[in-house]
Amino acid sequence: MALKAKGGGTRWTFVLVPGVLVYCVPIPGLNPAQRHLLAIFLATIISMVAQPVPMSVSVFLSITILALTRTLPANRVLSGFANPTVWLVFAATLFSRAVISTGLGLRLAYFFISRFGHTALRLAYSLAAAVTVLAPVVPSDTARGGGIIYPITRSLAQVFDSEPGPTARRLGSFLMLGAFHCGYLTSAMFLTGMSGNLITIELARKIAHVDLGWMTWFVGASVPGLLSLLFVPYVIYRVHPPELRDTKSASALAGDQLRKMGKISRNERWLTLILVAAMAGWITTLWHGTPIVIVALAGVCALLLTGVLTAQDLLTETKAWDVLIWFAGVLMMAEALQDSGVIGVISASVVGHIKSWPWWQALAVLVIAYVYAHYTFASMTAQITALFPSFLSAALLAGVSPMLAVLPFAYFSNLNAGLTHYGTGSAPIFFGSGYVSQGTWWKVGFVVSLVNLVIWLGIGPLWWKLAGLW
Amino acid sequence: MALKAKGGGTRWTFVLVPGVLVYCVPIPGLNPAQRHLLAIFLATIISMVAQPVPMSVSVFLSITILALTRTLPANRVLSGFANPTVWLVFAATLFSRAVISTGLGLRLAYFFISRFGHTALRLAYSLAAAVTVLAPVVPSDTARGGGIIYPITRSLAQVFDSEPGPTARRLGSFLMLGAFHCGYLTSAMFLTGMSGNLITIELARKIAHVDLGWMTWFVGASVPGLLSLLFVPYVIYRVHPPELRDTKSASALAGDQLRKMGKISRNERWLTLILVAAMAGWITTLWHGTPIVIVALAGVCALLLTGVLTAQDLLTETKAWDVLIWFAGVLMMAEALQDSGVIGVISASVVGHIKSWPWWQALAVLVIAYVYAHYTFASMTAQITALFPSFLSAALLAGVSPMLAVLPFAYFSNLNAGLTHYGTGSAPIFFGSGYVSQGTWWKVGFVVSLVNLVIWLGIGPLWWKLAGLW
Repeated sequence: MALKAKGGGTRWTFVLVPGVLVYCVPIPGLNPAQRHLLAIFLATIISMVAQPVPMSVSVFLSITILALTRTLPANRVLSGFANPTVWLVFAATLFSRAVISTGLGLRLAYFFISRFGHTALRLAYSLAAAVTVLAPVVPSDTARGGGIIYPITRSLAQVFDSEPGPTARRLGSFLMLGAFHCGYLTSAMFLTGMSGNLITIELARKIAHVDLGWMTWFVGASVPGLLSLLFVPYVIYRVHPPELRDTKSASALAGDQLRKMGKISRNERWLTLILVAAMAGWITTLWHGTPIVIVALAGVCALLLTGVLTAQDLLTETKAWDVLIWFAGVLMMAEALQDSGVIGVISASVVGHIKSWPWWQALAVLVIAYVYAHYTFASMTAQITALFPSFLSAALLAGVSPMLAVLPFAYFSNLNAGLTHYGTGSAPIFFGSGYVSQGTWWKVGFVVSLVNLVIWLGIGPLWWKLAGLW
Repeated sequence: MALKAKGGGTRWTFVLVPGVLVYCVPIPGLNPAQRHLLAIFLATIISMVAQPVPMSVSVFLSITILALTRTLPANRVLSGFANPTVWLVFAATLFSRAVISTGLGLRLAYFFISRFGHTALRLAYSLAAAVTVLAPVVPSDTARGGGIIYPITRSLAQVFDSEPGPTARRLGSFLMLGAFHCGYLTSAMFLTGMSGNLITIELARKIAHVDLGWMTWFVGASVPGLLSLLFVPYVIYRVHPPELRDTKSASALAGDQLRKMGKISRNERWLTLILVAAMAGWITTLWHGTPIVIVALAGVCALLLTGVLTAQDLLTETKAWDVLIWFAGVLMMAEALQDSGVIGVISASVVGHIKSWPWWQALAVLVIAYVYAHYTFASMTAQITALFPSFLSAALLAGVSPMLAVLPFAYFSNLNAGLTHYGTGSAPIFFGSGYVSQGTWWKVGFVVSLVNLVIWLGIGPLWWKLAGLW
C-alpha cells in the first residue's frame, strides 16, 4: 500500500500520535468539538511536513475526516474552495505560466542579469528593490510577489540551469526564499502594501485612539524596513547559500542572449499589456472597489481570449490545482479554528497571564506570541481580525503607551507571514515552485522571524522615539 | 486572436447580441439587476452551445463579468466552487478514472457483453436494468449514474473501438445517451432514488395535504416508469442510431477476453471493496445522515491511500477540473437567478395566467412549463425548492384534485433533468466523456422530454385513476 511507501509507517506515526492524543485527551478550556478541530488541524500541519502522502492528499483526507467525525458540517469543509484568496493564488499561478511560456520571463531575467547579475546576492537585492517599488501601489502580497516577482525569479533560476531537484541549490532555492521574504516585508512598509493594513488602522483608532496615516505608517517602518531588506537576503544567503555565488560570466552573456531573443513576440506584447492592465487594476483598488481577485480573473480571461494561454493550459496546470486543493483546505481549517474559539481560548490565556507584568516585558512577550500565533493562520488579514484587538488591548492594559502598543502589532501582522508555506497567498506560489523543501522553508522562515524581531522589536522602538512617534 | 478562430466572429455574434439586448433593453417585471443577471446567464448558456471558446473559458468569463459589472458580489461568484454537488461530480469522475485505469471497467464490460451483448439496443437495456436495480438504494443520480454506470458505459464503448471523435457514433454516443437518460428516469421511480424527492413529499404534505409514502410513490411511478425505460432507449436508438447494431460476434469473443484477463488484480480488488463501501454509505444515507458527497470524498481518499489512484492521477484528471470550473459557474448562476427572484417573476406570470383555465388544461400547461423551466436549473433539488410550491398551488387553485396535482410535479422534478448537459450532476459526467456534441445532447434531451410528457402526463393520470390514487 501507498501507506507504507518511503518509510510511510514512521511518517504516519508522527502524524497520528499527536493527532489522536489531542483528539482524545481533555485539554482545560477547550470543549471536545474545539479539541477535535485542533487535533485534525495539528495532524494536517504535521502531515504537510512529514509527508506520509503528498500534501494535497493529506488535506483531502483532513477535509473528509472533519466531515465524517462531524467536527465541521459538510458545507463548511468545502467552503475553502470559494475563498477569494485561493482563486487569487490560482490566477497568479496562471500569470506565471504565461510569463514563463511566452518567454517574457526569460527576457526580463536576461535584462536583470545583464544589469545587476554580478553576484547571486546582488540578484536577490535587485528582486527586493523591484518588489519594494511595487509595494506602495499593489496592495496585495499575493498579486505582487506571486503574480509578478515569482515568474521573474523562476526564469532567473532557469537561466542558470537551476531547476527543482538536484540543481535547486545552485541558485533557485536561494532566490525563491529571498524574493518571497522580501515580498511580504514590503507589505509591512506601506499602509497600502496589504489590504489588511486598512483594518489595522481602523482597529487602532477604535481601541487605542491612535491615528495611523499613510505617512506615519511609512515613517515608522522606514528605518526597520530598510534594515530588514538589507539583512534578510543576507541572512538567507548565509543560512541557505546558493552554490553559484559569482555570476559575473553570466552577466556578460546575458546581453548577447537578450539580443539573440530578437524582437518581442505577439504573445509577449499581449501579456505585457495584460499584466500592466492588471497592475493598474490592483493599484486603483481603493478607488474602484473591485476586489483584487476579480481583477486577476479578468486578467486570466484576457490571457485566454488573446490566446496567450489556451483552455488546455488552464486545465493542465497541475501546480495550480495542487495549490487549490491544499491551500483551500488549510484556509478553511484555519478559519474554522478561529470561528470555533480555539484561538480565542489560547490567546486569552497568554493575554491573561501577562497583563500585570512590567509594560516592556509584557509588550515583548505579547508581540512574540503574536508572531508565532501565525503558525495557525493562512492569511495576514485573518490574524488581524482575530487577534489584533485582544493583543493590543492587553498591551494597553499593561501600560504600554498607545502608539508604541499599536506599531509593533501593525507591522508584525505583515512580518509574521513568512513562517510557513501557507502563511500568505504568495507562499504557496513560491513554495509550489518545488525549489525548497518543506523543512528548509520552515527553518528559514523561523530564522527570518528572529531577524525581524531583533530589528522591528529591538531597534524599532528606538527609531520611533527618535522620530517622535511616542 | 483566439476570438477569431474557427468562425469565432459569427459564434460571438450569437452569444453577444442576445446577451447585450437583454442586458440593455427594459423587460417588464424585472429590475435592472435582475435583467443583467438573466442576460449574462443567457449569454453563458448560448456560448456553451455555440462555443466561440471552450466551455470552461466561457464560464470563467461569465464569472468575471458578473463581478466586474457588480451584478453579483465577488464572494458570490466564487460560491459555486464550494457547492457539494460540484465535488460529488468531481469524486465520481475520479471513481470513473479508477474503474477504467484498473481494468475493472473492461472486465465488467466483457462480462456484460458476453451475457447481454447480442445487439447495441440490448446493451442499452441491460445498462438500464443495472441502474434500475441501484435506484431504490442509491439516493443520488450523480453517484449512481456518474459514479457507477458511467465508467462501465465508457468501457463498453472502448471494447467496440468507439472513442470520442470520429468513432463516437459507432456505439459510444448511443450508449452514453441511453445510460444517462435511464439514470435520472429511475430517480423518478423511487422515493429513495433522489434525495430531493424527500423535499417533494414534505412540500406535498404541507401544500396539498397529500401523504406520499414510498409505496404510493412507487405504485404511481411503476407503469409510466417501465414504459419510459422501454421507450426512451428505443427512441434514442431511432433518433441517434449507433453505426454498430449487431454485436453478436463481439459477444462470442467477450467470454474469451474475460478469460484472457485472468484473475482480478490487487488494485481491482481494492477498488471493488471501496466502491461497494461507498455504495453501502450511499444506501444508508437516510440512516447515518453523512452527506453523499462526503461518502464519495471518503472513497476518493481510500483510493489515494491504497494507491489505486495516485496524487498525480488526481492532479492530471483534466476532465474533472474542466467540469469543476464550468459546472460550478453554471450552478452558481442558476442559484443566483432564483435568489434574485428572476425565476419567481417569470413563473408567477405563467401561474397567474393559468389559474382560471379548466383544470386539465391548467395542469397540462403548468407541467409543461415546469419541465422546460429546467433549462435554467443545474439541479433537480434546486427546482423543487424554487418552483414546486408555486406550481402545485396554482394547480390546486385551478381545481385539480390534490393527488393528481402532486404526482406529475413530483415525478417531473426528476424527469426534467435530461434536457441539458448541466441539468443534474450525472449530466456533466456523461457529457464530459466527449462522445456526444452539445447540439446532439440538447436535441436528444428535448425529444426524450416529449416522450416522457406523453407517457407520464398522457398515460400517467389514467394509470393513477386505475390504481385508485385519485
